[in-house]
Amino acid sequence: MGKIRNIGMLTGGGDAPGLNAVVRAVVKTAKQYGLGVVGFLNGFGGLIKNQVRELNERDVAGILPRGGTILGTTNRDNPFCYPIVKDGKKVYVDVSDRIFENIGIQEVDALIIIGGDGSLAIGRDLHEKGLPVVGVPKTIDNDLWATEQTFGFDSAMTTATEALDKLHTTAESHHRVMVLEVMGRYAGWIALTSGIAGGADTILIPEIPYNIESIVKKINERSRQEKQFSIVVVAEGATPIGGEMVVQKRIEDSFEPVRLGGIGNVLGRQLEEVTGKETRVTVLGHLQRGGSPTPYDRILATRYGTGAVKLIMDGRFGEMVCLTGPTISSVPLKEAAGKIRQVPLDSDLIYSARMLGISMGD
Amino acid sequence: MGKIRNIGMLTGGGDAPGLNAVVRAVVKTAKQYGLGVVGFLNGFGGLIKNQVRELNERDVAGILPRGGTILGTTNRDNPFCYPIVKDGKKVYVDVSDRIFENIGIQEVDALIIIGGDGSLAIGRDLHEKGLPVVGVPKTIDNDLWATEQTFGFDSAMTTATEALDKLHTTAESHHRVMVLEVMGRYAGWIALTSGIAGGADTILIPEIPYNIESIVKKINERSRQEKQFSIVVVAEGATPIGGEMVVQKRIEDSFEPVRLGGIGNVLGRQLEEVTGKETRVTVLGHLQRGGSPTPYDRILATRYGTGAVKLIMDGRFGEMVCLTGPTISSVPLKEAAGKIRQVPLDSDLIYSARMLGISMGD
Amino acid sequence: MGKIRNIGMLTGGGDAPGLNAVVRAVVKTAKQYGLGVVGFLNGFGGLIKNQVRELNERDVAGILPRGGTILGTTNRDNPFCYPIVKDGKKVYVDVSDRIFENIGIQEVDALIIIGGDGSLAIGRDLHEKGLPVVGVPKTIDNDLWATEQTFGFDSAMTTATEALDKLHTTAESHHRVMVLEVMGRYAGWIALTSGIAGGADTILIPEIPYNIESIVKKINERSRQEKQFSIVVVAEGATPIGGEMVVQKRIEDSFEPVRLGGIGNVLGRQLEEVTGKETRVTVLGHLQRGGSPTPYDRILATRYGTGAVKLIMDGRFGEMVCLTGPTISSVPLKEAAGKIRQVPLDSDLIYSARMLGISMGD
Amino acid sequence: MGKIRNIGMLTGGGDAPGLNAVVRAVVKTAKQYGLGVVGFLNGFGGLIKNQVRELNERDVAGILPRGGTILGTTNRDNPFCYPIVKDGKKVYVDVSDRIFENIGIQEVDALIIIGGDGSLAIGRDLHEKGLPVVGVPKTIDNDLWATEQTFGFDSAMTTATEALDKLHTTAESHHRVMVLEVMGRYAGWIALTSGIAGGADTILIPEIPYNIESIVKKINERSRQEKQFSIVVVAEGATPIGGEMVVQKRIEDSFEPVRLGGIGNVLGRQLEEVTGKETRVTVLGHLQRGGSPTPYDRILATRYGTGAVKLIMDGRFGEMVCLTGPTISSVPLKEAAGKIRQVPLDSDLIYSARMLGISMGD
Repeated sequence: MGKIRNIGMLTGGGDAPGLNAVVRAVVKTAKQYGLGVVGFLNGFGGLIKNQVRELNERDVAGILPRGGTILGTTNRDNPFCYPIVKDGKKVYVDVSDRIFENIGIQEVDALIIIGGDGSLAIGRDLHEKGLPVVGVPKTIDNDLWATEQTFGFDSAMTTATEALDKLHTTAESHHRVMVLEVMGRYAGWIALTSGIAGGADTILIPEIPYNIESIVKKINERSRQEKQFSIVVVAEGATPIGGEMVVQKRIEDSFEPVRLGGIGNVLGRQLEEVTGKETRVTVLGHLQRGGSPTPYDRILATRYGTGAVKLIMDGRFGEMVCLTGPTISSVPLKEAAGKIRQVPLDSDLIYSARMLGISMGD
Repeated sequence: MGKIRNIGMLTGGGDAPGLNAVVRAVVKTAKQYGLGVVGFLNGFGGLIKNQVRELNERDVAGILPRGGTILGTTNRDNPFCYPIVKDGKKVYVDVSDRIFENIGIQEVDALIIIGGDGSLAIGRDLHEKGLPVVGVPKTIDNDLWATEQTFGFDSAMTTATEALDKLHTTAESHHRVMVLEVMGRYAGWIALTSGIAGGADTILIPEIPYNIESIVKKINERSRQEKQFSIVVVAEGATPIGGEMVVQKRIEDSFEPVRLGGIGNVLGRQLEEVTGKETRVTVLGHLQRGGSPTPYDRILATRYGTGAVKLIMDGRFGEMVCLTGPTISSVPLKEAAGKIRQVPLDSDLIYSARMLGISMGD
Repeated sequence: MGKIRNIGMLTGGGDAPGLNAVVRAVVKTAKQYGLGVVGFLNGFGGLIKNQVRELNERDVAGILPRGGTILGTTNRDNPFCYPIVKDGKKVYVDVSDRIFENIGIQEVDALIIIGGDGSLAIGRDLHEKGLPVVGVPKTIDNDLWATEQTFGFDSAMTTATEALDKLHTTAESHHRVMVLEVMGRYAGWIALTSGIAGGADTILIPEIPYNIESIVKKINERSRQEKQFSIVVVAEGATPIGGEMVVQKRIEDSFEPVRLGGIGNVLGRQLEEVTGKETRVTVLGHLQRGGSPTPYDRILATRYGTGAVKLIMDGRFGEMVCLTGPTISSVPLKEAAGKIRQVPLDSDLIYSARMLGISMGD
Repeated sequence: MGKIRNIGMLTGGGDAPGLNAVVRAVVKTAKQYGLGVVGFLNGFGGLIKNQVRELNERDVAGILPRGGTILGTTNRDNPFCYPIVKDGKKVYVDVSDRIFENIGIQEVDALIIIGGDGSLAIGRDLHEKGLPVVGVPKTIDNDLWATEQTFGFDSAMTTATEALDKLHTTAESHHRVMVLEVMGRYAGWIALTSGIAGGADTILIPEIPYNIESIVKKINERSRQEKQFSIVVVAEGATPIGGEMVVQKRIEDSFEPVRLGGIGNVLGRQLEEVTGKETRVTVLGHLQRGGSPTPYDRILATRYGTGAVKLIMDGRFGEMVCLTGPTISSVPLKEAAGKIRQVPLDSDLIYSARMLGISMGD
């Protein structure tokens, strides 16, 4: 492989606090190596349509503490399955060849893909097709295989904990059951950690199917101890024993139905009926994706950004930066993408929760 | 009137940040005057059922920065209209005489009622019936007549602004329309102030019926200026021109239906359909009622608490403390209770909003 | 007076949260009236040296929640007393004529001066010399005459309260006396409000000369009540009875000596010696000037910005916007500048503090 | 070893956010195992003087989000070197036998010591003498050997980052050099991480002796790039090449001299003289020790608390809980205590800092 002239970069998937910190670290590190940086706009869309923004140090000044991504992002625009209209019908085609063209036009010799499982899987496939890709793991859900932590998670978990701190005082004053629905479709990291940090009484996660009677039992047990309120944290992907996930598949381009009938509201209604206690539900939603990243996430995102450029300088394409203990290392994309990391049932986090007397709903 | 032996106190209505600060100030001020303080528990319920907690300085140590109320609160238990079961049917009766009995038993010679419009109206009626009452105005909505500000409002508005700060970055990254529904059934104070502070593009308040086309026009105008996102703040009581409030009356003791089909979700769906832009809705709900009060609210609540004891010492029963300019003063309960304070249409807040280019939906 | 073409604007004096919010509101409001805006850089320096930056809506996008000022600011560069080197010596001359020249060059027909007492006094003098000036009151100290509140104060007071919340827990754990020195050379607004909000035991303000024995008495009284810690908030301008202000006059261009031997450290040493209790001092310093403005300050600053443009459109030069009760109004600069607003000794804030059992050091 | 009846517990050394979270987790976990918990008050002092407080679930309700420790703490009272007055002179004696007596009186069969290096070394020695001890590593400095992270560090680092966020805006507005002195006498973890997260330009840590010319060069380089401000973060233990630590040894029981002439002020004065730029110094001090722990610290502290009880149940005395990657494990106290963990010079944190263009002062 020849010398690197420019690094290309895109941010894909849902928003997460720390994206701008990665972007900034990549630009600054690239400069130390004398490289230019080209940002492709709006996820894979910009890579397909050749929409770019040249990035120099001035562009990334002041963005470290800011949420969001100056490159824009989207959940759509998979280059291997891209919607076009043909004969009046929408069909999905492989447009990945355009990407090779576009990085040629932009004189880009290495591409950094910052994204979650979906984006990294596309990155893996592009690499297998010959594109010099390195990955940076991002998801507020923390459910990516092959890294101990993704950036964005600490911020989302902090937002959820702050919400619990607020709900706690009002639950106590009103003797209410308060249900907080947090993100986590396939893994319960946000629910479990914010639940422990926010002093929840019950935590429901996708890894442990719940029994409504357990939750009711916990609420009643607290009543007998003269604690006339309960805090229930529920991951959006939590399911009753033998039941199915309440989260409805979002119909493409339609208004999100999830918020109207998600697990939080279903559960809240059930608990109010069974316990007779006033119950209130809060769906935290997109608040978990936004805002200034926590210092932890700023640092992790920064290390990932410099680490990704280092992978490029070392010619280690097809790899993704990851966190192993206190150290940034890397792992092949083909091992990392496409696998979900759930909370292990023997995790000391779950042990701690149970020892605190928290019901896990089972 | 004879000498005061003990002051009684209760907190009524919805939770609001700063309740504990009032409670603490009352107890500490009473002590300076050598008086005892008796807290009636859970709003008017404790006053009717003679459920009390004696309050001394040790009980209020450390509660200043804490949300909620150590006395408990509830929206129910109107002594003039109290539900009892008679002949197998629920009927509503006047049990206000019991209150006079109970304050006698507790040797209470003056009662401080900390509450919103409903609680203060009950206080007014009890005073007219002979009870030595003084009031402290509380509501996160800031919609009480006769005071320039209620405690709890600054905290609620701050929570809403922080939510907007978070939604802003993610709206911008995703090119989305973000709708935030905040509290304010009859007045738009939270929506208007948080909308200005959080950089909203459209603010909808009950005082100004909205035209959906105005909102769409604003979104499209921004698109033409290459701002591919919009932030819409909507008070729960906002209504379309010629329409009715979407907020459904809560059926007693049933699960709150409001959250499922409130104005936020209705509006979000409409905007997504008309503009074709991805739209996301966040209903802030009870997060606005909880958490540590802002310094502003801690101070205002404290001044109200000491002011209420001063009213008692001056024998000025039937009055309510209020804020007039930079000063704590008072106003008769019969002038204050039962009247809503909306945002004046000629307010410089609305003028400022319009000058910033914010659409008010009209 | 003819038609306004462009508005000039500068930010002067010490940094304060909300400066950018004023700048943004001026630019956006001016645009509604079809006017251009020219920012003079770095306080009066830019006005004297004709250093400018044209300001349009793009320049002020995203600055609302950011501390600081995009125009730069400084405490120096008084045009009536400007240092130049003449015959090898530094002499001070009146260079105010240059300002008239420069606003002519920039086609500026009205000048908004955003600043504290010093900047507003210069504004008053420039107006008397014929310059069409309007003022916007800024100071974190809240000590400006003729307005009930300056922007920046709520943010500074919030920073001080957050510091007290932190010191509280550690004072309690360690049984220590904790002294917090906050800003306020001539007025005790920050000390008094943050002290009340942060649960201080003693508050020392410039308005009330203190007696060291009173403070010691308070600490010992708490010890007898088994409260083995005390929190003392002291304004930098607080003085002992019969004593002088410890704050040393900063020698021009030399390293600030204030921080090394300010009242906080003097007092801390004294209290440790007399009480024998471990005492720790924190000097909050510049942390009070920076950071994202509170929602309250964002709103007040925004209203001041639109109000200042309105004064210009109404031809009311020589006036300053101010807050009167809940309303933005205005007052002549010649009445406002040059007068300090101290905490009135009969203020209900001081009454509240005393009723809470807080020692005011007298 | 026989059956455990009661667990004893103490918190030693400087305050750190998360102490209460450990205390709460120990009490709740002990309850699951049917054990009682006795808290010894004020560090080793309570163990020596048999000052205790029985702890049940009610005592720890609500303390999770609170800073400080309900048990009290102190840096004094080493049982192996305890000051007593003999023949009018202060002499130091070994009073460790009293501890064995006292735990007998309290029917305590295992002791949890929550503390930093000093407290854990005492714990190691007590264990060697026969006391059934387990340790929990605490220090805001994060400089304990044998654990990847101590609780308290994330909160301290977050406080330092928030301070940098505030100083950043004001440095930029005033074109100043801002120096922030943070804790870290022997290791630069707080300075390095907060410096990266807060966008510092220079970071000085004890691990890398600094060259004043390097710092000046960095400031001037930024000036040439039209960045007229610089942020310098300095750990209190940073030293110039060939120089000595400026931190003065605290003379016992005298007023802390460190704050008056620490490295921050020394450096600030030097930089102002050499660069001619206005320089301001902030010494963060005890603000880093207080306040509500971050969610990260609440969780880590909780896991440590439950982990410590588990060590006891498994009979693994003489060990300390620690964090290894994502898992709580343990390590012998004799390997852990008495060794400092500095930032490794080949750490990717330092690599990242350099790649961002941050000067490490060398």
